[in-house]
Amino acid sequence: MPIQFADRMATVHRSFIREILKVTEDQSIISFAGGLPNPELFPVADLQAAAVKVMEESGPQSLQYSTTEGFQPLRQFIADRYKEKKGIDVSADEILITSGSQQCLDLLGKVFLNKGDNVIIERPGYLGAIQSFSMFQSNFLTVGLEDDGPDLAELEMVLDQNDSKMFYAVTNFQNPSGLTYSPEKRQGVADLLKGRDVLFVEDDPYGELRFMGEFHKPVVRGYLKDDGVLLGSFSKVAAPGFRLGWMVCSGEMRDKMIIAKQASDLHTSTFAQRVIHRYVTDNNLDDHIEKIRQRYGNQREVMVKSIEKFFPAEAKVTQPEGGMFLWVTLPESVSAMELFDEAIKNKVAFVPGRPFYVDGTGENTFRLNFSNSDETRIEEGIKRLGSGIKEFLTKS
Amino acid sequence: MPIQFADRMATVHRSFIREILKVTEDQSIISFAGGLPNPELFPVADLQAAAVKVMEESGPQSLQYSTTEGFQPLRQFIADRYKEKKGIDVSADEILITSGSQQCLDLLGKVFLNKGDNVIIERPGYLGAIQSFSMFQSNFLTVGLEDDGPDLAELEMVLDQNDSKMFYAVTNFQNPSGLTYSPEKRQGVADLLKGRDVLFVEDDPYGELRFMGEFHKPVVRGYLKDDGVLLGSFSKVAAPGFRLGWMVCSGEMRDKMIIAKQASDLHTSTFAQRVIHRYVTDNNLDDHIEKIRQRYGNQREVMVKSIEKFFPAEAKVTQPEGGMFLWVTLPESVSAMELFDEAIKNKVAFVPGRPFYVDGTGENTFRLNFSNSDETRIEEGIKRLGSGIKEFLTKS
Repeated sequence: MPIQFADRMATVHRSFIREILKVTEDQSIISFAGGLPNPELFPVADLQAAAVKVMEESGPQSLQYSTTEGFQPLRQFIADRYKEKKGIDVSADEILITSGSQQCLDLLGKVFLNKGDNVIIERPGYLGAIQSFSMFQSNFLTVGLEDDGPDLAELEMVLDQNDSKMFYAVTNFQNPSGLTYSPEKRQGVADLLKGRDVLFVEDDPYGELRFMGEFHKPVVRGYLKDDGVLLGSFSKVAAPGFRLGWMVCSGEMRDKMIIAKQASDLHTSTFAQRVIHRYVTDNNLDDHIEKIRQRYGNQREVMVKSIEKFFPAEAKVTQPEGGMFLWVTLPESVSAMELFDEAIKNKVAFVPGRPFYVDGTGENTFRLNFSNSDETRIEEGIKRLGSGIKEFLTKS
Repeated sequence: MPIQFADRMATVHRSFIREILKVTEDQSIISFAGGLPNPELFPVADLQAAAVKVMEESGPQSLQYSTTEGFQPLRQFIADRYKEKKGIDVSADEILITSGSQQCLDLLGKVFLNKGDNVIIERPGYLGAIQSFSMFQSNFLTVGLEDDGPDLAELEMVLDQNDSKMFYAVTNFQNPSGLTYSPEKRQGVADLLKGRDVLFVEDDPYGELRFMGEFHKPVVRGYLKDDGVLLGSFSKVAAPGFRLGWMVCSGEMRDKMIIAKQASDLHTSTFAQRVIHRYVTDNNLDDHIEKIRQRYGNQREVMVKSIEKFFPAEAKVTQPEGGMFLWVTLPESVSAMELFDEAIKNKVAFVPGRPFYVDGTGENTFRLNFSNSDETRIEEGIKRLGSGIKEFLTKS
């Protein structure tokens, strides 16, 4: 077919991670590549009971078209939970239910980004956001991550030297690095953004998965008072298969988001929204999240311990207090892409770091997922990977 | 907040229909305004049984992330059904599952439309498509609809005089007009598009809701051999609350669509896809559709008869053989928008036609939905509306 594709398609490619996931479908491979929650922890029976109850109590309404904003009682639940768990004020009217938090990125692109607009992201940055914003032909600027959040001096320089439309950040247990913004860095970001026309977009899918240490308030509404957008998701605390996320936004921005969502998919599944609402009403979500924390916390512990045991000292690894990922930095001479090819032969997989860097750096980094492997496989996989790294270091 | 919205947001507004629906939430109003299926016909018990079975048989997988393309067995079902019901060859690999067929429009915009690209639509045209393509700052060209499909002479002229990227058409029981393309018009469209670099997008959410007359093959793969995109949906044959639609596309176009969908929402609800697949496997979808046809057919009959009885002869009405809508054309002197304000006072509602015309015409037209009112209310509502029209004609 000779029909021309739109210009935007020239710069966007298939998610490298999704391509890797195909390689790792082979069950004999121990995969730390995916970003999948552990399916053993999905509350199948409780969600089944919720689905039955929704059908019995409100079948026809639950299967009908519904409002673009989303199911009001579910929006109320989310708003109340922000107050209770994060200590920030959000009203149900300020919640827009989305088809996963990935859709929030698409809607933000639609509502804010003209071709060539500057978007500041973290280095390394979340691949889903890079993909999504790329569809709007945005120009990426990056700010390096330190152990406790962004390099504030670099952020200030980037803000001073460029007109930027937005700063997108994952403030808790970031994907891919696992890093979390300290209260000081949160305050620092808020101070730097004050008085500038730069939208702060705070993505927080992992914030509730904290195994140790203390919760921090979100930057949006915790430190930055009126501005900013906060994203959330049920994917990591309940189940991703429903595709349920949300965006906290208000005023004219909210109106524009609703218009953009109408044009995108009319609304998110009525049935999914009502089932999740029934589930969180009839069950204690905190108890369920506590189970996830316990399990992932143990898995992280085993991974960290195994790395200490099997990785050479030259490999630097982050030690996040929650989430689903660790981040490894190898000596500069080692290519994680080449290591990946070798690792696959030894039946172990990870995600090479380069795709998380829009500037083509990060060759010597990679991401490890600990949420979706049991402890035995984690130890064995890390052992295999450690041997592989040592071989590479010997060669180089 | 002083942050500038993207340019595209300046031209897109909230769906006028969705605004009208708010007015008609008042239960005392007989509403022919919505485009809703009749919720009494949703197969609640069978979908509940399917949901339970999916949870019991494959709970964890059904709640996990899944592939962007969609659930393979569901794609196979759709492909097989095309062969069986429409006589066209489609493979499961050519089906992309989407979050409602509305999402297909968004993906088509993403993959094909640069700012200013010409898109040909029908006059009147589907509002959801106008909204969706407007987000990509497309320029609309229109082709008038006759009783049996598009005015081919006008289509030829529009094609000859402009470089167009796409021609979007609803070939069966169009929303809003209820009109269907005859086999001759289908062939005519295929002939006119032959050898031109114009993508034919055929949207067919209502094709299975035929109460009388004969099925026609889709233009895509029925008349146009290799090109074109065909859209489908479970919203009108099962339930819209799941947000499940699909797109038939192949080759490089399919690859681009997958990339665009990854960036938009990763994938459509795993659970919803598996429940619908279970439902169509364990039940006879044809039997269910037959029930819908019977009911809507009766409702259409009552509406047509009531119109003959209560509307003045000057009101011209389409007589579709299926779908959910009738289309009324009043004498040019009458404004359907003014009629709407009067009608609401008499507790009856419809959708004024002007929003379906991108050129600002259509002031004297309106849409009537017959799928979502019972026969008593249809007769009473049409009676009230007839009185209102007669009053307007007397005044004008």
